[in-house]
Amino acid sequence: MAATGEAGRDMVRNKQVVLKHFVVGAPKETDMEFREGKTSLKILKGAEGAILVKNLYLSCDPYMRGRMREYYESYIPPFQPGKPIEGFGVAKVIDSTNSNFSVGDYIVGLTGWEEYSTIIMTEQLRKIEILDVPLSYHVGLLGMPGFTAYVGFNEICSPKKGDYVFVSAASGAVGQLVGQLAKLHGCYVVGSAGSTQKVELLKNKLGFDDAFNYKEETDLAAALKRHFPEGIDIYFDNVGGSMLDAALLNMRVHGRVAVCGMVSQHAVSDTKSISNLYTLVMKRVRMQGFIQSDYLHLFPQFLQTMVNLYKEGKIVYIEDMTEGLESGPAAFVGLFSGKNVGKQVVHVADE
Amino acid sequence: MAATGEAGRDMVRNKQVVLKHFVVGAPKETDMEFREGKTSLKILKGAEGAILVKNLYLSCDPYMRGRMREYYESYIPPFQPGKPIEGFGVAKVIDSTNSNFSVGDYIVGLTGWEEYSTIIMTEQLRKIEILDVPLSYHVGLLGMPGFTAYVGFNEICSPKKGDYVFVSAASGAVGQLVGQLAKLHGCYVVGSAGSTQKVELLKNKLGFDDAFNYKEETDLAAALKRHFPEGIDIYFDNVGGSMLDAALLNMRVHGRVAVCGMVSQHAVSDTKSISNLYTLVMKRVRMQGFIQSDYLHLFPQFLQTMVNLYKEGKIVYIEDMTEGLESGPAAFVGLFSGKNVGKQVVHVADE
Ligand SMILES: NC(=O)c1ccc[n+]([C@@H]2O[C@H](COP(=O)([O-])OP(=O)(O)OC[C@H]3O[C@@H](n4cnc5c(N)ncnc54)[C@H](OP(=O)(O)O)[C@@H]3O)[C@@H](O)[C@H]2O)c1
Ligand SMILES: NC(=O)c1ccc[n+]([C@@H]2O[C@H](COP(=O)([O-])OP(=O)(O)OC[C@H]3O[C@@H](n4cnc5c(N)ncnc54)[C@H](OP(=O)(O)O)[C@@H]3O)[C@@H](O)[C@H]2O)c1
Repeated sequence: MAATGEAGRDMVRNKQVVLKHFVVGAPKETDMEFREGKTSLKILKGAEGAILVKNLYLSCDPYMRGRMREYYESYIPPFQPGKPIEGFGVAKVIDSTNSNFSVGDYIVGLTGWEEYSTIIMTEQLRKIEILDVPLSYHVGLLGMPGFTAYVGFNEICSPKKGDYVFVSAASGAVGQLVGQLAKLHGCYVVGSAGSTQKVELLKNKLGFDDAFNYKEETDLAAALKRHFPEGIDIYFDNVGGSMLDAALLNMRVHGRVAVCGMVSQHAVSDTKSISNLYTLVMKRVRMQGFIQSDYLHLFPQFLQTMVNLYKEGKIVYIEDMTEGLESGPAAFVGLFSGKNVGKQVVHVADE
Repeated sequence: MAATGEAGRDMVRNKQVVLKHFVVGAPKETDMEFREGKTSLKILKGAEGAILVKNLYLSCDPYMRGRMREYYESYIPPFQPGKPIEGFGVAKVIDSTNSNFSVGDYIVGLTGWEEYSTIIMTEQLRKIEILDVPLSYHVGLLGMPGFTAYVGFNEICSPKKGDYVFVSAASGAVGQLVGQLAKLHGCYVVGSAGSTQKVELLKNKLGFDDAFNYKEETDLAAALKRHFPEGIDIYFDNVGGSMLDAALLNMRVHGRVAVCGMVSQHAVSDTKSISNLYTLVMKRVRMQGFIQSDYLHLFPQFLQTMVNLYKEGKIVYIEDMTEGLESGPAAFVGLFSGKNVGKQVVHVADE
């Protein structure tokens, strides 16, 4: 709904999701609030090299929790209270003073949780060239989570045909792909997830050999022993905590643990300590943390591979899409109790 | 003192150190006892392919603690209560029905904690060819601990010139060599040890850049921060427990932790859990357990390298030698409270 603003420009409403204060413990919807601002549909004078975008899809990712803490020593700075939070998104360029981007282009990269964003740090953006897949996939299958699965599995896990692979948070944005990549590699794959529905998806839609609901197990080490009587060659760890401890007890000789994330520890102040590290020596296990952005030189190869696999029908991707920016805070908060079934995306607007 | 035995053979006294019972918690001298048997100085008929040796030096190694537990799933079976314990030793062949070994040869390998042993599993023995270094070095500098330092540092740590290297139990059999190899590699090396005397040795005799007595520190993470203001590239972990947890907090981006052993956890039933594994992700750290025996193909290369370095005066080796088989149990038990200063060896007999 355009109006004529002070400077005589077209002004429109710009709803925003703002961080209210730094967060301690599990994030809550009330840690964020909505603000209704206005924005011009033209880039303000002086902002050379910028683009103005309409945000279409916003991605909910667990790492964003880290940016809600007052902690400045991370690889990425915290959000600023009183300002819109930011995250990966797919957006359409509606004005540009940057020669790399034209009006009408679709881009993916860090943008604001708001209807319209002016993006100055355009180096981190990617123009979307692949338009014959759902646009939202560029924050999932073909975006950061997909890339995380790809480099985590290929570069960290040293997979071999026939390996026994365990994936936690297996139906999530990263996990669902790790499992499918492992199957394509000729591995035996079991996933854990937090509901019957997710377990069914893993077995019937995502092609896992087996899956279990960890919330129904009283003894995680025993559950893993049941699913891996011969032990685990590769554990792709998305959750940390007690599942990691249980997996360590079940590793095979020369096993690998890819430490992708510890989502079970994000939201708790009293983190779970790990007792079974001695297996690292006994079983000569390699345990390795990684961050996808260290491997960006592999992104073009990833994109090509994944698009092909998808188009050949060899890979599927499950999204959990909520409607409207208003649904954003709840969707994000839901990650930490497993409300999302598949990759959590917020659909902000149509083109 | 030879006597004529029942079978008309030369019989001599054979004092032995016998495991009394399986051990729970820290090993004590009273978990072992002495037994005085007799042995012939000729191999008994029927034992084809065996050798009879006079044991000269016996090695005290932390892993032997693992063989005192009633636990059968390890890579090495437990000792049998009522039988002599065994370990690495240097011995002289006094009779042989094995064409690979002749009377007068020196061998190194697994032998009994006794004066004379008949060894049937001779495949694991190595005939000592290098005789111009102290014989006892074949269970230290040129033996299993030296080899552990060599493969642990070269194969697991991915060392680079200029790396900041931290070694725990740094004055011990393995640690003292890791530090020296790291220095030769052009690294900056700090060691921790449990007494002022050991710290002095590290700084003044073993060429470490710096060293500290961890028993005098109330906050290990702060101590490491003090010694590594820029963080640690390589942690060679001999101890596990709280030192490992503190080191994790101080790792640099792309750091490596070689998990060689967890001697601080051997003797306690209530093991210390690790809380700081999240750094593995934040700092993209690789943490890898290893066992030296997986790398035996590198043994000849190790031997050559180490002998050369030693003869060129580029490496020194500190031993802690006790006298007589009688001193064995106390020497072994002392490993777990840090009584040993350098590689712990028991001198059983002269040739
Ligand atoms: N290293 C990297 O570069 C990188 C990049 C992206 C993501 N990551 C990490 O990868 C992991 C997965 O991320 P994602 O984007 O794929 O998220 P996701 O799996 O789509 O969503 C998070 C899931 O975690 C599970 N979860 C939440 N709380 C849990 C708890 N207390 N215990 C066990 N599981 C819990 C829930 O599934 P259930 O119903 O199964 O419990 C939830 O659906 C996260 O740890 C994230 O930080 C790392
Ligand atoms: N992975 C392999 O293949 C392999 C092979 C050989 C050895 N290892 C391991 O390497 C490590 C070192 O072995 P080593 O033969 O060189 O032994 P060592 O260092 O010569 O002797 C053990 C030393 O450990 C330290 N220690 C004992 N209890 C401790 C505690 N509670 N906390 C901290 N430090 C403690 C003591 O030194 P301080 O005075 O400094 O405390 C003691 O002198 C052990 O963990 C061993 O199991 C592994």
